[in-house]
Amino acid sequence: MKVSKIAIIGFGVVGSGTVELFYKNKELIEKRSGRKMDIKRICDLREFPGSPFADKFTKNFNDILEDPEISVAAEMIGGKTLAYDYTKKLLSRGVSVVTSNKELVATHGAELIKLAKENKCNYFFEASVGGGIPIIRPLHQCLAANRIERIAGILNGTTNYILTKMIYDQVSFEQALADAQRLGYAERDPSADIDGDDACRKLCILGSLAFGKHIYPEYVHRSGIRNITLDDVEYVANAGYAVKLIGLIDRTDKGLVATVCPRLVSVNNPLSGVNGVYNAIMIRGDSVGDTLFYGRGAGKEATASAVVADIIDAVKHENADIASLTWEDSENRDFILPYKSANVRVYVRISARDADSLKSFITTLFGFVDFIPRKQRSSSELAFITPEIEEYQIDRKLALLSEHADVMRKIRLL
Amino acid sequence: MKVSKIAIIGFGVVGSGTVELFYKNKELIEKRSGRKMDIKRICDLREFPGSPFADKFTKNFNDILEDPEISVAAEMIGGKTLAYDYTKKLLSRGVSVVTSNKELVATHGAELIKLAKENKCNYFFEASVGGGIPIIRPLHQCLAANRIERIAGILNGTTNYILTKMIYDQVSFEQALADAQRLGYAERDPSADIDGDDACRKLCILGSLAFGKHIYPEYVHRSGIRNITLDDVEYVANAGYAVKLIGLIDRTDKGLVATVCPRLVSVNNPLSGVNGVYNAIMIRGDSVGDTLFYGRGAGKEATASAVVADIIDAVKHENADIASLTWEDSENRDFILPYKSANVRVYVRISARDADSLKSFITTLFGFVDFIPRKQRSSSELAFITPEIEEYQIDRKLALLSEHADVMRKIRLL
Repeated sequence: MKVSKIAIIGFGVVGSGTVELFYKNKELIEKRSGRKMDIKRICDLREFPGSPFADKFTKNFNDILEDPEISVAAEMIGGKTLAYDYTKKLLSRGVSVVTSNKELVATHGAELIKLAKENKCNYFFEASVGGGIPIIRPLHQCLAANRIERIAGILNGTTNYILTKMIYDQVSFEQALADAQRLGYAERDPSADIDGDDACRKLCILGSLAFGKHIYPEYVHRSGIRNITLDDVEYVANAGYAVKLIGLIDRTDKGLVATVCPRLVSVNNPLSGVNGVYNAIMIRGDSVGDTLFYGRGAGKEATASAVVADIIDAVKHENADIASLTWEDSENRDFILPYKSANVRVYVRISARDADSLKSFITTLFGFVDFIPRKQRSSSELAFITPEIEEYQIDRKLALLSEHADVMRKIRLL
Repeated sequence: MKVSKIAIIGFGVVGSGTVELFYKNKELIEKRSGRKMDIKRICDLREFPGSPFADKFTKNFNDILEDPEISVAAEMIGGKTLAYDYTKKLLSRGVSVVTSNKELVATHGAELIKLAKENKCNYFFEASVGGGIPIIRPLHQCLAANRIERIAGILNGTTNYILTKMIYDQVSFEQALADAQRLGYAERDPSADIDGDDACRKLCILGSLAFGKHIYPEYVHRSGIRNITLDDVEYVANAGYAVKLIGLIDRTDKGLVATVCPRLVSVNNPLSGVNGVYNAIMIRGDSVGDTLFYGRGAGKEATASAVVADIIDAVKHENADIASLTWEDSENRDFILPYKSANVRVYVRISARDADSLKSFITTLFGFVDFIPRKQRSSSELAFITPEIEEYQIDRKLALLSEHADVMRKIRLL
């Protein structure tokens, strides 16, 4: 039986995890896939003295590119410069590429998928969203009969860890962030996580696949969790919600609404119970209804699980592209609606000298309003949830309210 | 472009739902799959006057079997007599078969998969477990790199509806069952659901796929939810658990432990929040850790979503079998351990004249024991949770306890 030869490019956390998992479960993997396969080359500029894979290392990418035996390469470099260049070169030669590089897929996915198809190979990226959670394949294969109505996901483990910590341990955002950094869940510069960029890239990949057009990160409204305070966490808990950073795309008759921002999630929604570094993605199809996919959104082993699954699938489809994993490029954002044109409910917290005296004014502004109780609430503070109205209108009403009070916080509901 | 021709056998709830969904989203389905396809024939013995699909109906199965144009058939008859016969005939002629028939797959899966492979076609059954929830494909494709350690699922919507109703509305099992029957969630003879047979078939399918050997329903210990009372529901809630009917397979070094029975699920486990007719399946892989798949476990539209996904995949793999969807037949159950040899914690409720006086005896029997509080608990009643011990030993200790008290209930923990 022919042995398919695989290359690993980048021997960092995920790259080394992929190699380790492959050899740990090689027998099982080959049995399940009905194929023999082996890792022939590992490309990295660093030295790994004493590595059991010493005979496979090369510092020269061309050793992989020019090896006619290699049919699948795992790009584990990250970023969008060298990784982009290597991926294009490999696909152009008909070598399938699998990756966990969400930045590259979110930025150049349409182009790279097209290039793969032109060269009868595949570009797979199951590991780019939700770590080890099976989501890309379920979305384009198992839910292929559905018009997708909504994607709502907790797509970033760092922010979910911080918010969970704030909710359960009653610590401030700053303390929770410091804790996440200490445990290695957050980078020293945590902005890509906490400002929503990372979640945004993942949402773009899911949305592009579900709706068939490339949704570039700049099409998506983004706001992070820096401003969430313990006051907010407590108020929303009293109203039966948890604050989560949610990547959301809703399909409407006029176009898509795409946002990454903190949202109040009802305790009746399974997403509200997704805690710590776990991720979960809810997909709503017109036929299947709501489905939810849950698991570890990051980490060496979980991510390697998805990368090796992609390698197996790439080996099984040598010289044949998977038609369904595709989307078209988009020239402009005219299929994405201004997010404030969507109807939404929002949570509002205000501060004013005699906040309670504003209740009737607020009710007149919004119609029916849910005022949220809080133990020993200060008389200068008030929090409420509006009915569902177009967000532009909500902002106009809040502008009127701000003549009488400081509008401290506005958080959308899911 | 060639148009692949499909046949539907059985135009009941799922069969008609499949046809309706196919035509509703035909354009989208063809675009995503990169294939043209059409339903050529629908076989049913009944008349459907005025159906928009009148030109496709036949009462003669041979019109499908002998039509060389038809490459994929959806068997929507159910049961294991006619469906078994038809499926064998179709697969023998190289026609791929897709089905939601869990009974047939659980009983004859190994044989039918083998027959499909011998004839270079496929036998797909995504809809047989969890309705529309993507689970079969994620398990054998996305998690293919993992040694599966555990499968734990809420696999039956009827029992989950009944248990949820008991927990939230504080109604008895009998009342909740009557309610489920009134709403059409339970059959007039509900035994296949409430005694665990339906969940068992689904667990067998998942287990066979995950562990590579056919797990026949008779290999699995089964007990249903008839005996669960509101007393139990209240006690376990006080201890931080919900009662759920759980299909469970654990891999140990010595073999598999497979059971379908009510279990206490901790509120910290996402399965505890799966309510009503929803299903959820937790899969634990050695690399990915815990993943969870959630959605509607039954219903016309959700099930049709999975059937059409299988049809698409069968069309895409005409004349090529999917290697990974397979397991071997098993000649005996020697890879399944006696379930009582597993270590487990159990909840026990006893009745005795002066139940509290038995506390020290119980503690001596089991070592550390969690006694569960209850508002206005009667002095003749006591509930507790044991530490983790081999279940044979637990039963021996409970036999000793039964010399002093009536052991009213024993429920395992997940």
